[in-house]
Amino acid sequence: MSLEPEIRVPEGVAAVKHPIVRVRQDDGARADDHVAVEEPLEIRLGGHSLTVTMRTPGDDRELVAGFLYSERVIRNADDLDLVAPYRGGDGEPNAGNVVNVLLKGNMDAARERLRRNFVTASSCGLCGKVTIEAIQADLPPVTASLVLPAAIFSDLERAMGRAQATFERTGGLHAAGLFDADGRLLVLREDIGRHNAVDKVVGHMLLARRLPLDRHILMVSGRASFEIMQKALTARIPVVAAVSAPSSMAVEMALAADMTLVGFVRAGGFNIYAGAGRIALARSPSR
Amino acid sequence: MSLEPEIRVPEGVAAVKHPIVRVRQDDGARADDHVAVEEPLEIRLGGHSLTVTMRTPGDDRELVAGFLYSERVIRNADDLDLVAPYRGGDGEPNAGNVVNVLLKGNMDAARERLRRNFVTASSCGLCGKVTIEAIQADLPPVTASLVLPAAIFSDLERAMGRAQATFERTGGLHAAGLFDADGRLLVLREDIGRHNAVDKVVGHMLLARRLPLDRHILMVSGRASFEIMQKALTARIPVVAAVSAPSSMAVEMALAADMTLVGFVRAGGFNIYAGAGRIALARSPSR
Repeated sequence: MSLEPEIRVPEGVAAVKHPIVRVRQDDGARADDHVAVEEPLEIRLGGHSLTVTMRTPGDDRELVAGFLYSERVIRNADDLDLVAPYRGGDGEPNAGNVVNVLLKGNMDAARERLRRNFVTASSCGLCGKVTIEAIQADLPPVTASLVLPAAIFSDLERAMGRAQATFERTGGLHAAGLFDADGRLLVLREDIGRHNAVDKVVGHMLLARRLPLDRHILMVSGRASFEIMQKALTARIPVVAAVSAPSSMAVEMALAADMTLVGFVRAGGFNIYAGAGRIALARSPSR
Repeated sequence: MSLEPEIRVPEGVAAVKHPIVRVRQDDGARADDHVAVEEPLEIRLGGHSLTVTMRTPGDDRELVAGFLYSERVIRNADDLDLVAPYRGGDGEPNAGNVVNVLLKGNMDAARERLRRNFVTASSCGLCGKVTIEAIQADLPPVTASLVLPAAIFSDLERAMGRAQATFERTGGLHAAGLFDADGRLLVLREDIGRHNAVDKVVGHMLLARRLPLDRHILMVSGRASFEIMQKALTARIPVVAAVSAPSSMAVEMALAADMTLVGFVRAGGFNIYAGAGRIALARSPSR
């Protein structure tokens, strides 16, 4: 099945103009600058507030679907009965910042699952090791055997750069892109929060019923943290590439889950932090 | 009162070495790379788990004090009875990732205040406007009348650059620096989370009994979000400078709270997003 790349300026408002004073040396000039939009989004489950996240408006349904999937409240698109923007009454402020979710089956069980997951995430024993073990218990390592040519990563980086519409204007948005094993960009999302950009990408694929993503590459425009790796692992993505640095827990988690983690992806090369076996090099790495 | 600049490699471990494969073209070489450490920190209030945050170890007491202050669980250093690393038993894993807090006075009231604040933050009606109004109700606008020469900001940026020890090695840490109105760096902290770096800075000043910070400048190495502005406003910091872009809510909050917000601070200049009256220019800004 083929899918046209999903790259677009978000349906919401990703950037707004603000009047600024541009200072060079000690001279100022009035100007307008584009600023990345940050607004809260409330997720309501069965009409009850579940959580609020700061996000860049646009693709809110994907964000919510991806978030619920990452938190393992839902297992697939069939668990969702409804994901819809709250309409609100006439003139009700902020209606555009609320998304309603209804689940099929027993909503109380889902709510309990979420509560348990939140508790797990927030009092799990608490060092990296234990957290990783707790996650591994739920999420087996990835098993994808794909092998990628080393040259693919600079292609990904170029494709991300071309697609990042809003970043250029605002300098303020993170991007996440999902690629297939041939290096084709399938979907790219931007958000003020790097985790939101990933949730939007995963949510897009979930709603398109294209999970699991076990032949795919996730690329993020900034750093790779523990949280990014956890979301990738949940969606079974075997390869994560970051334009900037990974954290220690991202590396440890990649090693523990047999994921491939690549960082500092630039025009001339990149670093492999874990899972080098999935990347074909001209010869065995020298010492 | 004068304070020597508090710039140091964190007392914990901020970076660890990991073996990597460095790829250039399609040739790989084994090497070691420094990776920024990310580990969970559990905050216990009266022995009960309050929250867990992912952070870079080091200056945990400051982080906890700053967090409790930002969340308005405490009003000043006198509210704290004890902030101390959990010692744990022999060989107990992760003891180093737990900090115990005891408060003077009624701990139940503090816990209730925290619960209420969390609820406020997570179901407050939910568009930027409402959130900002809710915050304004509790936190009056800043009133500091200080005026800074425009040239000070490139000095701040240079001082941050010189002090950022760990970033250079890992490329993975955010920094927050606090400066006085003469541009002197008072304290700089690095963390994998930008909000943690700010909490550490504020916590440092809180524990040194040097709040409020109403003649000070907060500088962050990356972007300025709503959350950063909220922490600055709580500590009464009138001027926030970011090396990169601000978000729309950061700008709106600065305007609403009479704060000065400056972004894209580079060698040659910067942009003023709010509160231009605190910055002295050679002449009125041209159109």
